[in-house]
Amino acid sequence: MSLIEELNAQYKEIEYLNNATALMAWDMRTYLPEKGSDERAEAYGYISTLAFKKSTSQELGRIIEELNGSEVLQSLSDDEKAMVRVATKSYRRARALPPEFYQKFMVLVAKSEHVWEEARKRNDFNGFAPYLEEIVSLSREGASLYGYDENPYDALLEGYEEGMTSKRLREIIQPLKEELVPFLKRIIENGKAPETGIMKGKFPRKAQEKLSYKALKFIGYDFEAGRLDETVHPFTIGVGVGDVRVTTKYPPDEFTSSLYGSFHEGGHALYEQGLPADLSGTPLYSAVSLGIHESQSRMIENMVGRSKEFLTFFYPHIQKAFPNNFKNVSMKKFYRAVNEVSPSLIRIEADEVTYNFHIMLRFELEEAMIRGELEVCDLPRRWNDKMKEYLGIEPPDNRDGVLQDVHWPSGMIGYFPSYMLGNLYAAQFYAKAESDIKRLDKRLERGDLKPLIEWLRVNIHSQGRRYEPAELLKKVTGRDLDPGYFIKYVKDKYSGIYSL
Amino acid sequence: MSLIEELNAQYKEIEYLNNATALMAWDMRTYLPEKGSDERAEAYGYISTLAFKKSTSQELGRIIEELNGSEVLQSLSDDEKAMVRVATKSYRRARALPPEFYQKFMVLVAKSEHVWEEARKRNDFNGFAPYLEEIVSLSREGASLYGYDENPYDALLEGYEEGMTSKRLREIIQPLKEELVPFLKRIIENGKAPETGIMKGKFPRKAQEKLSYKALKFIGYDFEAGRLDETVHPFTIGVGVGDVRVTTKYPPDEFTSSLYGSFHEGGHALYEQGLPADLSGTPLYSAVSLGIHESQSRMIENMVGRSKEFLTFFYPHIQKAFPNNFKNVSMKKFYRAVNEVSPSLIRIEADEVTYNFHIMLRFELEEAMIRGELEVCDLPRRWNDKMKEYLGIEPPDNRDGVLQDVHWPSGMIGYFPSYMLGNLYAAQFYAKAESDIKRLDKRLERGDLKPLIEWLRVNIHSQGRRYEPAELLKKVTGRDLDPGYFIKYVKDKYSGIYSL
Repeated sequence: MSLIEELNAQYKEIEYLNNATALMAWDMRTYLPEKGSDERAEAYGYISTLAFKKSTSQELGRIIEELNGSEVLQSLSDDEKAMVRVATKSYRRARALPPEFYQKFMVLVAKSEHVWEEARKRNDFNGFAPYLEEIVSLSREGASLYGYDENPYDALLEGYEEGMTSKRLREIIQPLKEELVPFLKRIIENGKAPETGIMKGKFPRKAQEKLSYKALKFIGYDFEAGRLDETVHPFTIGVGVGDVRVTTKYPPDEFTSSLYGSFHEGGHALYEQGLPADLSGTPLYSAVSLGIHESQSRMIENMVGRSKEFLTFFYPHIQKAFPNNFKNVSMKKFYRAVNEVSPSLIRIEADEVTYNFHIMLRFELEEAMIRGELEVCDLPRRWNDKMKEYLGIEPPDNRDGVLQDVHWPSGMIGYFPSYMLGNLYAAQFYAKAESDIKRLDKRLERGDLKPLIEWLRVNIHSQGRRYEPAELLKKVTGRDLDPGYFIKYVKDKYSGIYSL
Repeated sequence: MSLIEELNAQYKEIEYLNNATALMAWDMRTYLPEKGSDERAEAYGYISTLAFKKSTSQELGRIIEELNGSEVLQSLSDDEKAMVRVATKSYRRARALPPEFYQKFMVLVAKSEHVWEEARKRNDFNGFAPYLEEIVSLSREGASLYGYDENPYDALLEGYEEGMTSKRLREIIQPLKEELVPFLKRIIENGKAPETGIMKGKFPRKAQEKLSYKALKFIGYDFEAGRLDETVHPFTIGVGVGDVRVTTKYPPDEFTSSLYGSFHEGGHALYEQGLPADLSGTPLYSAVSLGIHESQSRMIENMVGRSKEFLTFFYPHIQKAFPNNFKNVSMKKFYRAVNEVSPSLIRIEADEVTYNFHIMLRFELEEAMIRGELEVCDLPRRWNDKMKEYLGIEPPDNRDGVLQDVHWPSGMIGYFPSYMLGNLYAAQFYAKAESDIKRLDKRLERGDLKPLIEWLRVNIHSQGRRYEPAELLKKVTGRDLDPGYFIKYVKDKYSGIYSL
């Protein structure tokens, strides 16, 4: 066996273990019987640990070290070099934390999630605060172990968005704030608000389900390589090659959760289904980053699914699904209602214009905590101040304020920025797709998504993890990340909708 | 850690790996997307192999050897001694086959199943024969590796029914034949046949599904520790503690597959759900044997589900589920129809009276092949002769004759007898339950299954694998296996139904 074959033999085994834990995780959130959850958690932990041990083994370390010898490296193809790059980074990162540290962190997080859930119900920030303090403290320790140049936060960010830094994030955020805070103010004060009463009503489960299937089929989701199930918190999961599952939910009194949730998860799923199968079991059989992943879901959900063009084609299907609700509602009315801008307390309910503000706020707070410049006890006040500043509203309690997200209790500090980056990447990719594909707008009006999906396949999905996020973006669009694309997209679209 | 704790630490890890493969297997037969099957098969093979390696590791061998030291053994509790007994036997059996032999056999079987499936479609015994020859040859080699006293077949049988021998089987079969071959003849020639036309018709899927849920609830299947899904070949699977799943199918033109299939699988599931949770992760957290397992499913399916007493209570539910079919059909008519005796070519469609003949025939043929007294090329002729002798009918082709079961192509020689033993154990257990529980018949008429299920829980399910099959039977019923119970049960019941 060549060294590369040795490397991939190790990765193949890790992939098999990950297949098992992915299926277990999917099942835990869809079909697992209640009384099965205790042993399932143990079994899941055991097999995850096997995978972790494999990915930090001395054997793998030896292979990676030998592959990094300059003579060996030179003899490799570009793909093989990329494999070595990804494997080396992953290995070093996984080895950076001593097993006891990792174990301690996992135990803390498991407890913390539980405490948070209860504390949130009781609107009790102080009950949760000691756990968050401990999570911040261990995260800072983790950042030191990973190592960083300027800012300990960057070491955490790297785990979600390779190559991104807090300095770069601040550069990106500045123009977003400068342009969109006043733009939002104009929308609220001078915009012609859509009639959103039309979105209220009863939406039969069966009709919602049928429409979700239809939506997924339209965007090219392959049901022979996946399935749609119901869950409480929708997600997409790649269980294995040819097996990428999506989930959604069907609340009876509104249907945008299921329809736009299906577009969103479908966007993630297209990425996973489009990964290069011939690279399965290698370090390259993976998405580039969380941010790039999110760009795929946001593009399909918002830039396609909520566009005037696509709705020209798709709205009749929505009318057909819910005739009682939309028989006498024009496409234009629906288009405006489904794009309502409304500063809200809750991130996951935010519209395209306000969503990024929720992220900036979280990034600024978590980064300050990690740098030691913000105490956990001061967090609720700072949270509320920033909500006021960016969105003009203030949470009446912590439940719908600082306690709303699972990310901090789960120890995922550094995760939030990828949501914002997803929006920005999506706008930049989409602008390039529009210039590459002749009359993309007209095609969407005809419901013809094929050229766009094919463009995503070729340029993004089939690339696997060959490139870092910034490299891929530059390779595809010819430019570094530029928030101007997103700003232009938002201003153009919402100036129209709000008659500004 | 004590040696017993060391043993159970090993078993716990094996259990976690088995949890994963069980879930993967369940998913492969219910929800796995088509294109996911290739990698799933590989991942399944990988994790099964990890479990096999753990169960044959030198580390486990050392622990077991030390536990078998006479001083250590003496210091153990009864349960701990049973753990050592089971672990020792399993370990020796697993180590008996060299890995290369095992691998060779697995590859052969995978091919053979595929060839059989195609050969069966074409009614082509000769196309399958070379594979069966190879399976018999390797099974004989396997028997030598396992070791045996008198008959190589016993070494294979031991894998499914601990302690059973071909000699003992023959002793059991003799009275069954003597009594039931003539009894079947009387039924056919002199019996008053039921009207079975009432069972034909259309049975809506939803109504079948609802009735299956109802049936499972009535017998005490715990839906918080399991679930019911649809599949092509119904099965029960213990995925983990608190997670025992059943499956069924809903053909549109008959409903006994789903209803009696649910009773049958539900009987298996009650056993798995009733295993002693405090012994999970030990060698005792397991059913006693396939035969004892089958006794639980056959008892619920036939002795309860097809009894006049239980139908007195349950038939109105069936009428309610299918009013178009049964509104004007009396319980007595239904009871007789659902217990129709009709010698048929296909084992899985056989009634209570004829079922065991299908098994005797298979046992006699496979045992003769393993002893080298029957050539594969002579198999179809011998099969047909025996069908004629026991059941009075002859298959028109091999498709519905010697090619009908998956067991031989799957390399499971020695498996069939457990089906028959299940029927015999069931009758013997049931007779004891009837003498232990006051007016069990009256309770069934009221739909009160609780005392029977509780009796099974206490006497059988909660025992786990503490005892060998013969020991358990004796402990519970006070007697060795006696086919007289089954013979009496069948004669009493069917003399009534056929007015003999």
